[in-house]
Amino acid sequence: MAAAGENLRIDADRLWDSLMEMARIGPGVAGGNNRQTLTDADGEGRARFQKWCEEAGMTMGVDRIGNMFATRDGTDPDALPVYVGSHLDTQPTGGKYDGVLGVLGGLELVRTLNDLNIRTRHPIVVTNWTNEEGTRFAPAMLASGVFAGVHTQDWAEDKTDAEGKRFGDELDRIGWRGDEAVGARKMHAMFELHIEQGPILEAKGCEIGVVTHGQGLSWTQVTVTGKESHTGSTPMPMRRNAGLAMARILLEVEEIALSHAPHAVGAAGHIEVHPNSRNVIPGRAIFTVDFRSPDLTVIEDMEARLDKAARRIAEEMGMQVELEKVGGFDPVTFDKNCVEAVRNAAERLGYSHMDIISGAGHDACWINRVAPTAMIMCPCVDGLSHNEAEEITRDWARAGTDVLLHAVLETAEVVA
Amino acid sequence: MAAAGENLRIDADRLWDSLMEMARIGPGVAGGNNRQTLTDADGEGRARFQKWCEEAGMTMGVDRIGNMFATRDGTDPDALPVYVGSHLDTQPTGGKYDGVLGVLGGLELVRTLNDLNIRTRHPIVVTNWTNEEGTRFAPAMLASGVFAGVHTQDWAEDKTDAEGKRFGDELDRIGWRGDEAVGARKMHAMFELHIEQGPILEAKGCEIGVVTHGQGLSWTQVTVTGKESHTGSTPMPMRRNAGLAMARILLEVEEIALSHAPHAVGAAGHIEVHPNSRNVIPGRAIFTVDFRSPDLTVIEDMEARLDKAARRIAEEMGMQVELEKVGGFDPVTFDKNCVEAVRNAAERLGYSHMDIISGAGHDACWINRVAPTAMIMCPCVDGLSHNEAEEITRDWARAGTDVLLHAVLETAEVVA
Repeated sequence: MAAAGENLRIDADRLWDSLMEMARIGPGVAGGNNRQTLTDADGEGRARFQKWCEEAGMTMGVDRIGNMFATRDGTDPDALPVYVGSHLDTQPTGGKYDGVLGVLGGLELVRTLNDLNIRTRHPIVVTNWTNEEGTRFAPAMLASGVFAGVHTQDWAEDKTDAEGKRFGDELDRIGWRGDEAVGARKMHAMFELHIEQGPILEAKGCEIGVVTHGQGLSWTQVTVTGKESHTGSTPMPMRRNAGLAMARILLEVEEIALSHAPHAVGAAGHIEVHPNSRNVIPGRAIFTVDFRSPDLTVIEDMEARLDKAARRIAEEMGMQVELEKVGGFDPVTFDKNCVEAVRNAAERLGYSHMDIISGAGHDACWINRVAPTAMIMCPCVDGLSHNEAEEITRDWARAGTDVLLHAVLETAEVVA
Repeated sequence: MAAAGENLRIDADRLWDSLMEMARIGPGVAGGNNRQTLTDADGEGRARFQKWCEEAGMTMGVDRIGNMFATRDGTDPDALPVYVGSHLDTQPTGGKYDGVLGVLGGLELVRTLNDLNIRTRHPIVVTNWTNEEGTRFAPAMLASGVFAGVHTQDWAEDKTDAEGKRFGDELDRIGWRGDEAVGARKMHAMFELHIEQGPILEAKGCEIGVVTHGQGLSWTQVTVTGKESHTGSTPMPMRRNAGLAMARILLEVEEIALSHAPHAVGAAGHIEVHPNSRNVIPGRAIFTVDFRSPDLTVIEDMEARLDKAARRIAEEMGMQVELEKVGGFDPVTFDKNCVEAVRNAAERLGYSHMDIISGAGHDACWINRVAPTAMIMCPCVDGLSHNEAEEITRDWARAGTDVLLHAVLETAEVVA
């Protein structure tokens, strides 16, 4: 296939202006954003996106779970669309780019094509997936999961937030429930541009991450039950210190992950001890072990070894332990042709690039089940994300969106 | 000295009835008590205690920080009183015996002497110390500390609770600020009967703990600062997992304490990680290490080794660590003669007994600074305390109070 429009580049200033304008909707407290899903701010962000899409000559469709699809027509009425997009919702103390770059990067590529009236055979659809973050309504990637048939729509709509409000009710309240059946659309391909949310690209000085796989995830909640007792009056041999058992298990988690270097990772981000008082030996420790790997057999091995180690440690220390799998998804292998289109685009455009594995979950991970899919990553400063201080450079945004444009052009086929 | 009234025993049923009646004031939610200091319930408990003391012919004095002193006169107007007592305030989810047994055991011994009109040369004063627990207004043993000159009264009165209420204002509000200058009283001796709050006596089948020392305490708050990052997208070698550093330090705490077996102990009861989210590597871990020993040089050694180990681990892992001493008191050696009086009493009465070190802080630990002091411990079921399920048997209460009676009789000198 010809390298159509090899000299074509997106307008980085226009993209940046849109990113900054969107960031004014649902501002955070520390320079980032709090535009959580199905809030008034989410509604306002959606309306702004729709307005921009319509100004760019696109037609907006919305499905029954609020996913937004802005279509730029192709020349072939029988050709399935090439989808691009990500999500506009943010964490409660989120950044300005996580998700947003992928949506507004899609808008910018359409604007760029419009500037020169470049046509493609396949339509191009810019998408905003509802509730990617999952902080207000768990789990993450909820609406793309319904679209891909991973969850039922009823199950998703019954999810409640911390105040007990239902997802379905809040969708109605902000007025973004559409008419389309969820998942009815067929895709020629789907590309998601996203910030890395990790430190690798910046550390390696690479402008583009060609995402070949999504790591699989396994969350195991471990509950160790020892015995609450006074830190002063309980002799060491009579203690059943659940916090100490936890410490030993956490060292095992590190060992297990390191044994599958370099792609496997493991850590506990969530840790609680009870009663959490300075003079009471913890009678209970609850923590969640997060294991990830692009290889399902590695994840299964890590889970099994955690189970064994935790039981051995608990037994040695005279305590009880329970392990419960509280979340997870299988590793994803992105579509070979779509990945190749991304790599080709980076190569053609002269951007430094490397293959990378996505450590976080993304809408693309679910969509890959129902359509050929790939992801493009751009660096973010210091690997920081899910944080109001999340930052990227204008040049990184430009490079990522240029590669998105060219991967889409190759896939959607420029009409000469 | 003669073993005066060797056949004399307290009335265990009367003691038990008073314990149960007091427990109805400020009931907990699970069978124990919530009679926190300077609450309305505390005021009601104090009034009941005063009524009982007056019915037993005693005269109540109250000092300016609310400490209560019920005096049974001696025959020698120049003889300093023998004090007995503990505290009537409880933890928010406390038991029926922690502190209360020591106060009502003192009342019971006076009632027993009254039954037979037994006179002593020294007066006997039954004491209720204000705010021993320290949960509402930190620190613990607040008013006995002021009495012993460890704290100033102004400092104590300025302490505030979680709602911002001042100790001094709450003392006025419940109407228990007395006229006496705090610490003006001189003591011939002081005895505190208390439940062990640990498992040793029950495990050894001993009815009486002869408390020879109070453990010294050192609280060091450790703050490890790593780097918050995504559990998925941060490669293992780039992680700065503050939770993992904490786990390594917790294992060192155990090692350090065990190296000073059998009397030293160490643990962390308070543990927090930030942001405490399942998919974020902890960027910060804060925990408080509680070291105790009856030997000050051992405490100092444990503190120094914790400091060294924490700095070494942080350096190896590329993190920052801060250690701050947030609490502590020196070990206590109780008065030899008072301890001997307790041991003699147990021996005379035929109760099984052993020397024991108090692991928890008690009012007696401060009073020991200004008067010859000793403590008597009785077992508690399963070592459980600071818990509504705290339990003792009527026989244990009887044995402890019998020993209290006879230690006091030996010290206050029965008048033939």
